[in-house]
Amino acid sequence: APSCLPAQPAVAILGSGDFSKCLTTRLLRCGFHVVVGSRHPKLAAQSFPHVVDVTHHEDAVGKASIVFLAIRREHYSVLWDLKHLLEGKILVDVSNNRRVNQYPESNAEYLASLLPDSIAVKGFNVISAWAMQQSCPKDASTQVYICSDSVEARQQIMELARQLNFLPVDMGTLSSSRDIENIPIRLFPGWKGPVLAAVALSIFFFAYSFVRDIIHPYVKYKQSDFYKIPIEMVNQTLPTVAITLLALVYLAGQLAAAHQLYFGTKYRHFPHWLEGWLQSRKQLGLLSFFLAAVHVLYSLCLPMRRSERYLLLNTAYHNDNNTEEVWRVEMYVSFGIMSLGLLSLLAITSIPSVHSTLNWREFSFIQSTLGYIALLIATLHGLLFGWKRAFEEEAYRFYLPPSFVVALALPVCVILGKVLMLLPCVARKLHQIRRGVDSTIPPISPKTSQLERKCYKHFLC
Amino acid sequence: APSCLPAQPAVAILGSGDFSKCLTTRLLRCGFHVVVGSRHPKLAAQSFPHVVDVTHHEDAVGKASIVFLAIRREHYSVLWDLKHLLEGKILVDVSNNRRVNQYPESNAEYLASLLPDSIAVKGFNVISAWAMQQSCPKDASTQVYICSDSVEARQQIMELARQLNFLPVDMGTLSSSRDIENIPIRLFPGWKGPVLAAVALSIFFFAYSFVRDIIHPYVKYKQSDFYKIPIEMVNQTLPTVAITLLALVYLAGQLAAAHQLYFGTKYRHFPHWLEGWLQSRKQLGLLSFFLAAVHVLYSLCLPMRRSERYLLLNTAYHNDNNTEEVWRVEMYVSFGIMSLGLLSLLAITSIPSVHSTLNWREFSFIQSTLGYIALLIATLHGLLFGWKRAFEEEAYRFYLPPSFVVALALPVCVILGKVLMLLPCVARKLHQIRRGVDSTIPPISPKTSQLERKCYKHFLC
Amino acid sequence: APSCLPAQPAVAILGSGDFSKCLTTRLLRCGFHVVVGSRHPKLAAQSFPHVVDVTHHEDAVGKASIVFLAIRREHYSVLWDLKHLLEGKILVDVSNNRRVNQYPESNAEYLASLLPDSIAVKGFNVISAWAMQQSCPKDASTQVYICSDSVEARQQIMELARQLNFLPVDMGTLSSSRDIENIPIRLFPGWKGPVLAAVALSIFFFAYSFVRDIIHPYVKYKQSDFYKIPIEMVNQTLPTVAITLLALVYLAGQLAAAHQLYFGTKYRHFPHWLEGWLQSRKQLGLLSFFLAAVHVLYSLCLPMRRSERYLLLNTAYHNDNNTEEVWRVEMYVSFGIMSLGLLSLLAITSIPSVHSTLNWREFSFIQSTLGYIALLIATLHGLLFGWKRAFEEEAYRFYLPPSFVVALALPVCVILGKVLMLLPCVARKLHQIRRGVDSTIPPISPKTSQLERKCYKHFLC
Repeated sequence: APSCLPAQPAVAILGSGDFSKCLTTRLLRCGFHVVVGSRHPKLAAQSFPHVVDVTHHEDAVGKASIVFLAIRREHYSVLWDLKHLLEGKILVDVSNNRRVNQYPESNAEYLASLLPDSIAVKGFNVISAWAMQQSCPKDASTQVYICSDSVEARQQIMELARQLNFLPVDMGTLSSSRDIENIPIRLFPGWKGPVLAAVALSIFFFAYSFVRDIIHPYVKYKQSDFYKIPIEMVNQTLPTVAITLLALVYLAGQLAAAHQLYFGTKYRHFPHWLEGWLQSRKQLGLLSFFLAAVHVLYSLCLPMRRSERYLLLNTAYHNDNNTEEVWRVEMYVSFGIMSLGLLSLLAITSIPSVHSTLNWREFSFIQSTLGYIALLIATLHGLLFGWKRAFEEEAYRFYLPPSFVVALALPVCVILGKVLMLLPCVARKLHQIRRGVDSTIPPISPKTSQLERKCYKHFLC
Repeated sequence: APSCLPAQPAVAILGSGDFSKCLTTRLLRCGFHVVVGSRHPKLAAQSFPHVVDVTHHEDAVGKASIVFLAIRREHYSVLWDLKHLLEGKILVDVSNNRRVNQYPESNAEYLASLLPDSIAVKGFNVISAWAMQQSCPKDASTQVYICSDSVEARQQIMELARQLNFLPVDMGTLSSSRDIENIPIRLFPGWKGPVLAAVALSIFFFAYSFVRDIIHPYVKYKQSDFYKIPIEMVNQTLPTVAITLLALVYLAGQLAAAHQLYFGTKYRHFPHWLEGWLQSRKQLGLLSFFLAAVHVLYSLCLPMRRSERYLLLNTAYHNDNNTEEVWRVEMYVSFGIMSLGLLSLLAITSIPSVHSTLNWREFSFIQSTLGYIALLIATLHGLLFGWKRAFEEEAYRFYLPPSFVVALALPVCVILGKVLMLLPCVARKLHQIRRGVDSTIPPISPKTSQLERKCYKHFLC
Repeated sequence: APSCLPAQPAVAILGSGDFSKCLTTRLLRCGFHVVVGSRHPKLAAQSFPHVVDVTHHEDAVGKASIVFLAIRREHYSVLWDLKHLLEGKILVDVSNNRRVNQYPESNAEYLASLLPDSIAVKGFNVISAWAMQQSCPKDASTQVYICSDSVEARQQIMELARQLNFLPVDMGTLSSSRDIENIPIRLFPGWKGPVLAAVALSIFFFAYSFVRDIIHPYVKYKQSDFYKIPIEMVNQTLPTVAITLLALVYLAGQLAAAHQLYFGTKYRHFPHWLEGWLQSRKQLGLLSFFLAAVHVLYSLCLPMRRSERYLLLNTAYHNDNNTEEVWRVEMYVSFGIMSLGLLSLLAITSIPSVHSTLNWREFSFIQSTLGYIALLIATLHGLLFGWKRAFEEEAYRFYLPPSFVVALALPVCVILGKVLMLLPCVARKLHQIRRGVDSTIPPISPKTSQLERKCYKHFLC
């Protein structure tokens, strides 16, 4: 076995900036010998550990077969002078751009066109220099995406990444380098849709409440309730958006099931929008939890407020000891707490390291079963909050129904949809389709593994 | 070194279902060549990347020495026709069942009996297909359990798992395959006991409060207080269960210490029930935190409720400006907040990725020292809440003591037990036993490492 | 490729204590053959799995080339008898001490001096035995620090660590062993400074409020308000400390920027204290969030308290329906909730596994942009809470300004500092410096990579 171990191989890095320093630290820690190429070796040597060989570019390149380029794309032209020395060597392009698709071709492809006789490999750009040089790299097992037109070079750099305690991911040929270069400069791509949905819903429900609760009394009774905006209006908007987002999470799954039932197969692709929706269910759920938690905070602040106190003291003299009203408040408050408790369990299992301790059955139990129960309880919370007001004429200001009626329409539909899907006849058909029984193509399904359903259910619970 | 690198080895997969697709994706990303065997290769090829060689079973098997079986147990019989081709090859059984112990023998053992001339390896079944094919496998470092009767085949598949960015775990011979097959279909095995304990305690304390606070006034004064059930009764049950669970966490450690002191050795096994109890302390603690947090939410909702407001407005006219009462409320509220704050630190360090950034001493400081302080403060919170009512005659309805008296008995005992264990004479003896000094067996202890105590303390803080 | 795989190599462990058992379990699970050396092999064999070869020290050492020492430093002298057998073998010292710098030289160096003909390697001491032997090692990918004077031995043990599913870190020569031995017995080294800062600030602000709010009315009007201590005084201290800590987080970055602007270069090291401050920003931020969350809990408890209720009922008769006052309360409550909501996002992204799913741009967006917004909103929350009281004469008790004035001074300065840094002329200069343009040394900067700024910004957002 020892003969298989590399005898402290040398790796060259061109450039002596921060990334170069960070990469050097990591290479040293993992047992490599490092040669750094710099235009001012004596000056640069001061900021490197003394075991590192800081020298001229030409010298550095000559001492290693793997060369990291820690220089900017704008200065790749200086590599032209080293062309003959770099021939046949593996050049690892670690560069990033400032904007998505900044240049017509990716940096790595530009490098490959500049030095066709060297082997260009793209990689390591997703690692923040900070993560790389940490004196105590506790979360070291980060993904490193690697691509190259040379299969052998790719394998070699993947092995190197593994020895540096990274998890290499093979991304195929150099044409993937554009995608790889875009990874570290994207800003929450998976959250764009869900956040837009939440913002749009918030604006709609806020405007709706504004018209009903501020404009209506102002127009009708010349009553100025504008002080209600910062707390009461916001606190009316938050739960309506939260429950709508939670309903949207489960609506996606039901639409997917309907698609499968309609076409009688699970092998037909979902439409593009549904695919995107299914992928963003986690984000929708987390946003829903966040808004619900903020709603709780707002609600708990109500008794602290002056305006509320005046109200309280005024109602005190009425002293309408109405048992039904007492029960209603007790019930809707307790349903609200319960549904927040369940949602918090769903949120906790979304933490990556908690998620990874669950097997599929446990994850599905929490996200699907507990999630539906949370939706059901939240809906009951809303229904009890509204109570009879949905049927009182005076609640229909400007002929608009109260906002809780609007907000509860979707959750009620989703719950009814789930009940429908649990009917034996529908459930059996769906189960068969997900096992691979297919009414459209010849039966290749008997050979599909037990695990398939598992694989599938992950997208369609 | 390069000669040691595999030159893109080929791996065959029989079956073209979802698991097969997912495994293919991962294999490609990690630099392997994949051959898929299907009964309808042309049809199946459409749903695989074009670099994958989708062909007939016979052809696929012939092209690789490692063959993954992504087909259901019910169809293993079709492998009979490939018997001669599979001779001497490594067959990896990735199948799962729907129920625990569904068949008399495990799938892998059934496979081994079917094809005695091939080398059966069990593994990869715990990976959800979803985790395997993620376009961006961020939490890729998952455990893969592997077993086989052939040591060499096991080593080879473990190495393969490592190259696929999994963490392989050697589970020994094929007889472990039943256990491995049961892993992904278990539902929170570690939580069963703690949740049952919490439910049983909840029922007991709820019934106890129900008898004292609802039945008693109804029987005695014909007073109907049933509206108290959803909030007040629940909010009385939650903290009593929470503090009892927290006391149970530390009682387990004290019983273990008592066991060691009694037998004068740490090498004697604990009884089975105590072992199980020690293992479920984390779950008990998390349940305690969850219930405590919900208790806080319920308490904070009290002033929002109608029934409370009537009470408030009625007491207002009494206006008994009792300083002692003011102090009592201020103190028990602030103790309650403090103990929740400490418990939240304990809960946060239970998140796997936070836990793994702590060294043992830090973990023990939080879970043991801070945990005991939290228990102490929570007990003071309860004592101040109860105050003199424990000694008032009218509090003993139906001769039953108030529920806080019942709930605080155990925590007080555990705290006294801890004080006892901190007495110098007891602490010294316990320290010696845990260092390995043993009164029952000849002294092999001098050679045991410093780390032993550390190892031990983890179970017995 | 199979020829490169080690054919189940043998590893020897001297000592049969708990660490030995735990290490044995892990070695077996990863496919190694284990030989345990014990002074009482027959007795010890009972507590090891039967596949393990438990034998005498001499015998064990003879069967393997890698020997783990699972015995205490105090018993290293017994190794003297095995001196000739251990010649040329790799001895892995896994021992820990009880206190930092307990002995003049580290255990591993002591071992090396005792057995100069063997190759001493330090390692595996940071792994808790509990983590090592877990029946289901879910968070197995832990760091293992390794050092040795022999490069080859180091490489071999690092490879072994990798095969045991650990992440090895090369710490260089044996002189690092003292540092490695101190790692597992340190108690939150990174938290010491921030916690001390929080405690000092808490004492200062508490004393300040005590003088103004308790001593002043007592001296002036003989009014005894001591009951305010447990809740009101604490709840006044908490937010002031929280906002000061949050301001300190961003002040560090601004001082660093000022340092760079002053010297016109980013290559000049920061003074020691600033470096330490920059490193502890995460802890300062988390403490700030924790205190802010506790502050919210305290505030929400206010309406539950007796003293508050008297106040409420007394003010009720005044019934000063002051619109400005209503608006003020509504606004400062809602700003408070918003800033807690933002801070909770910052706190969540500090969970290691969540952090590692973010790319650098996302992390910087949350920690820098959202963080400044949270500071701004928290400052507005404080300003609205104080409102005109800062300008009322009676608020200056003992000529001391109200504590919110004192607490808001720093955050306001930090926000102004940020505004200054966003001015085009300053921002451009800073941008150039961070790109590597340097007014002090010859231009080596053009060759520094794009990633540099990224690397740098991590410390200086």
